[in-house]
Amino acid sequence: MSERLLYEGKAKRIFATDEEGVLLHRYKDDATAFNAQKRGSWVGKGRTNATMSAALFKFLESRGVATHFIEQVDDETIKTKKLQMLPVEVIVRNVAAGSLAKRLGYEEGTPLKSTIIELCYKSDELGDPMFNWYHFREVGVADEELKRCEEIGLGVNELLYPFFDEKGVLLVDFKIEVGRDEGGELMLADEISPDTCRFWDKESGEKLDKDRFRQDMGGVEQAYEEMLRRVTHMGPMGTME
Amino acid sequence: MSERLLYEGKAKRIFATDEEGVLLHRYKDDATAFNAQKRGSWVGKGRTNATMSAALFKFLESRGVATHFIEQVDDETIKTKKLQMLPVEVIVRNVAAGSLAKRLGYEEGTPLKSTIIELCYKSDELGDPMFNWYHFREVGVADEELKRCEEIGLGVNELLYPFFDEKGVLLVDFKIEVGRDEGGELMLADEISPDTCRFWDKESGEKLDKDRFRQDMGGVEQAYEEMLRRVTHMGPMGTME
Ligand SMILES: Nc1ncnc2c1ncn2[C@@H]1O[C@H](COP(=O)(O)OP(=O)(O)O)[C@@H](O)[C@H]1O
Ligand SMILES: Nc1ncnc2c1ncn2[C@@H]1O[C@H](COP(=O)(O)OP(=O)(O)O)[C@@H](O)[C@H]1O
Ligand SMILES: [Mg+2]
Ligand SMILES: [Mg+2]
Repeated sequence: MSERLLYEGKAKRIFATDEEGVLLHRYKDDATAFNAQKRGSWVGKGRTNATMSAALFKFLESRGVATHFIEQVDDETIKTKKLQMLPVEVIVRNVAAGSLAKRLGYEEGTPLKSTIIELCYKSDELGDPMFNWYHFREVGVADEELKRCEEIGLGVNELLYPFFDEKGVLLVDFKIEVGRDEGGELMLADEISPDTCRFWDKESGEKLDKDRFRQDMGGVEQAYEEMLRRVTHMGPMGTME
Repeated sequence: MSERLLYEGKAKRIFATDEEGVLLHRYKDDATAFNAQKRGSWVGKGRTNATMSAALFKFLESRGVATHFIEQVDDETIKTKKLQMLPVEVIVRNVAAGSLAKRLGYEEGTPLKSTIIELCYKSDELGDPMFNWYHFREVGVADEELKRCEEIGLGVNELLYPFFDEKGVLLVDFKIEVGRDEGGELMLADEISPDTCRFWDKESGEKLDKDRFRQDMGGVEQAYEEMLRRVTHMGPMGTME
């Protein structure tokens, strides 16, 4: 199958294939944070993130969520539908952390009264600023599209929160992206991995996600492996499948 | 009439009076910017801001907008209804300037396709962060209240934009606050002045507002006086009344 590089992002390379309307996402071993001001890399990151994304997309599809996922083709590579992406990062939050803790003046770890959604404009140049619906209208994203983004974000959270809870993980927050397929349907795209979620061990509170990299905590590789293990092998209540 | 200081803010002192449910707002000569990190003061600022606020509230009342305004009692002092304030700053924007120009990556002065509203949480401690409706829900401000804030903001803009246009002034953006009266009605409160609006001369583009103070441009006092003159004495098309 011939491949043609369409886009090299911070975490993945996107290829066109012979199949019309189909993409390959090859996950890289590179890690970036703070709008790519901090950079790192470790062997196996591409594999853990591709494999976890694939597993989570499969789970969500099995629960009726439309996603871009077609299949995992090798350790680091996922085949997806090619979508017209919205320039929107949909952030879904259950517990205050990161910029939300700062914005609200809450201590990190404070549970939220109710799930909070934030919409950011996907733009490396601008640093992915938080936008409201008026800002999005100005750059050509319609209210109806944002409404769908929020619905998809809340729906994914309602499935993933208990999924991770069963694996002993608190789903603190996560970021998704949404795109439109040929038929005009908006659906879940991009990735779901420790790069794009905050995962805290329910018992110890230990961070099992990219914050270990952002905050130079060490044990990043081990945390990503542990999360992959829990997602792919761990049954309910921590039993091994 | 006896007075009792209730609150000393950055720009005004608020007093209770013998009259139940009535406040005096005594405008100070102090100016602050960047969450009070920059401070200044000039003689006459309290007078210009109180007098312009009074004139604008009167104009808005005459056009059917409910406001807290009762009467101007002396050069620096306005009598108002006492309201239960919402902790919300409603920012209404017609042209990109300040933080919006940065957020959108627009050059200052770029006209917006359509009016943009931003809602900030009024908190000196947090630096008045931009909030969305989910954030406000978390701190106890209801969707219905925010909807009213936006309606009031847009309604005020529809009256003030042409009002200033006739006086040769581009109303770039402004900030209002909203409070609830005894009967439960949400209405326009606080002040409308060169401290809380961006005013640009239509012909020359000259700034006639607090940005002259923020950016150390000089001529601040003259700009405030000029704006007061235009609001209180200038008829349509720049003729003197
Ligand atoms: N199904 C899809 N179709 C088209 N583009 C996609 C799809 N899923 C994700 N993308 C886009 O591909 C890129 C993924 O690569 P990534 O390395 O995460 O890029 P970035 O640095 O822009 O975040 C992103 O720009 C993302 O929006
Ligand atoms: N009608 C009103 N009733 C009660 N409080 C009001 C009313 N109008 C304005 N305020 C409040 O009074 C204070 C005005 O003083 P100001 O010097 O502008 O304070 P700040 O530094 O908090 O902005 C603000 O906190 C404002 O919310
Ligand atoms: Mg990405
Ligand atoms: Mg004020």
